[in-house]
Amino acid sequence: MTNAVKQPLRVGVLGFGGLGQAAARVLAPKQELRWVAAADRHGYAYDPAGLDADRCRAAYRDRGSLGELHPQGCRSDHSIADLIARAQVDGYFLALPNLPNTFMADVARQLMQSGWRGVLVDALKRTSAMEQLLALHADLQQAGITYLTGCGATPGLLTAVAAIAAQSYAEIHEVRITFGVGIANWEAYRATIREDIAHLPGYDVEMAQAMSDAEVTALLDRTEGILKLENMEHADDIMLELAGICPRDRVTVGGVVDTRNAKKPLSTNVQVTGRTFEGQRSTHTFTLGDETSMAANVCGPAFGYLKAGAALHQRGQYGLFPATAVMPQFAR
Amino acid sequence: MTNAVKQPLRVGVLGFGGLGQAAARVLAPKQELRWVAAADRHGYAYDPAGLDADRCRAAYRDRGSLGELHPQGCRSDHSIADLIARAQVDGYFLALPNLPNTFMADVARQLMQSGWRGVLVDALKRTSAMEQLLALHADLQQAGITYLTGCGATPGLLTAVAAIAAQSYAEIHEVRITFGVGIANWEAYRATIREDIAHLPGYDVEMAQAMSDAEVTALLDRTEGILKLENMEHADDIMLELAGICPRDRVTVGGVVDTRNAKKPLSTNVQVTGRTFEGQRSTHTFTLGDETSMAANVCGPAFGYLKAGAALHQRGQYGLFPATAVMPQFAR
Repeated sequence: MTNAVKQPLRVGVLGFGGLGQAAARVLAPKQELRWVAAADRHGYAYDPAGLDADRCRAAYRDRGSLGELHPQGCRSDHSIADLIARAQVDGYFLALPNLPNTFMADVARQLMQSGWRGVLVDALKRTSAMEQLLALHADLQQAGITYLTGCGATPGLLTAVAAIAAQSYAEIHEVRITFGVGIANWEAYRATIREDIAHLPGYDVEMAQAMSDAEVTALLDRTEGILKLENMEHADDIMLELAGICPRDRVTVGGVVDTRNAKKPLSTNVQVTGRTFEGQRSTHTFTLGDETSMAANVCGPAFGYLKAGAALHQRGQYGLFPATAVMPQFAR
Repeated sequence: MTNAVKQPLRVGVLGFGGLGQAAARVLAPKQELRWVAAADRHGYAYDPAGLDADRCRAAYRDRGSLGELHPQGCRSDHSIADLIARAQVDGYFLALPNLPNTFMADVARQLMQSGWRGVLVDALKRTSAMEQLLALHADLQQAGITYLTGCGATPGLLTAVAAIAAQSYAEIHEVRITFGVGIANWEAYRATIREDIAHLPGYDVEMAQAMSDAEVTALLDRTEGILKLENMEHADDIMLELAGICPRDRVTVGGVVDTRNAKKPLSTNVQVTGRTFEGQRSTHTFTLGDETSMAANVCGPAFGYLKAGAALHQRGQYGLFPATAVMPQFAR
């Protein structure tokens, strides 16, 4: 063993809405990860020495894009493609909107076509989006990319705990994820809220995406700011099925989003119910502390998986991996 | 991809006390794992076609050793060495007593010296026992053995959940494991109870090991069957330190063992307290269902890690790995 100083991993963040901005703040104090690149819809910023989260947020908020950051920014209508071509990045966090549902797979293809090699992590939600990525496994292997999918909170943190909790049982009867989200102001999470609306009875992805801000506000006025979601299409189901833990129809995801209070309407939890080898039926429960935000529970795991993915990449393990296949590392 | 039928992993269990016998029952219904070998102090049993848990238990209980099982058994005063030399086994679960504290490391050395290659998992408890194993990393690499240590309940299941729960936080303040164990009859877990007694104030490993059954019974009479344990030396601490999650002194393990009731005196749980990137202090909690036994929570994870270890071994990843470095797989 040598005492050589290990270089920090150079990290990029694609997407700079609520999640991307939180990711920048999560990265700021970390020694092992250096945030060097980010892209939004209208531009990108790149600095090999590291970007400043506050300055980036100010450029995005006040001037509409990271491209306005001086001197590291660049306006572009092909911001992701331009950034990929220019930046030296070891791993990207795809903090992109989940809509359109093909977004993650499209960006993965773009990265493959560019010849870039490295680690990708996402915090996608829908089963159908993950299925598109699973189909890219061989292509990603060929391209030398290690892509870990489902690295957020759910799927992600809660799914991983469920997969470990399952170990006590001979058979799994049910995995039930119930989340509570409280956000003081829905407009900080425009894309996320539209994704949630798409899960409501009578709505679909296209309808939700087409809604104006005024229409979203009107809907939230009718529900007093509460979105109650049941039987959501969440990729936790396919991840636990692929891990051999249970058929996907035994996994349910639902929750309550309060768009007018930072306080969570209920404590996010996952319950894993099964039968032990002695024939006992029982339930393990994992409950998140109410003071932990969605951003903390998504971005922390995402970078823990990015660090784990870098170790896989270094060993030549390329392809598409559901996050549940890998133990996240703790990125300091 | 071919449709070749995958051969089950051939599994051995070293030690046939309460834990080893439970392991046999856990293995019985599994398609992916075949229990072919086991050793106790006085003999061993081996059958490439698979051993029968009930017949093995009867031989052990009624005739004192697996060596009395006909025709698969063999009496031996060097049962582990003899079994290793004879059996074709892909992975062993070391379901050995934790005392003497050097037991696991000694058996690991024995396996290395025999030229055997494969996967080892243990359910050890003490930090000092794990430190002995960590010192064997290079030797195990050289020997072509993949050894996952700390694969039981605590350390093991609870440590892995703690490592994942930590992902939400920028800094971890405390990991607190509190277990409740209820066993109807302490004499089914003679070695385990002595290990617990060794943690009591005024006792140490040597004293506990030297106690006769009558002395243990007398002690339990004085405490009405309850053992209350605080600040136990448990390897969860070194595992979380090695994972970079927190210094070991922030990890505490304690619990209550009721030796006269199968019902747990409290629900086993792990609490992970930390600070999020926004500066919020919070606590995630994972609680085991009361109906899950110690045996279920130890043996399930052990075989999940054995399956994961087999994948590492196949890729040529040899050496000593704390279980927290690896995601357990679900062994069907």
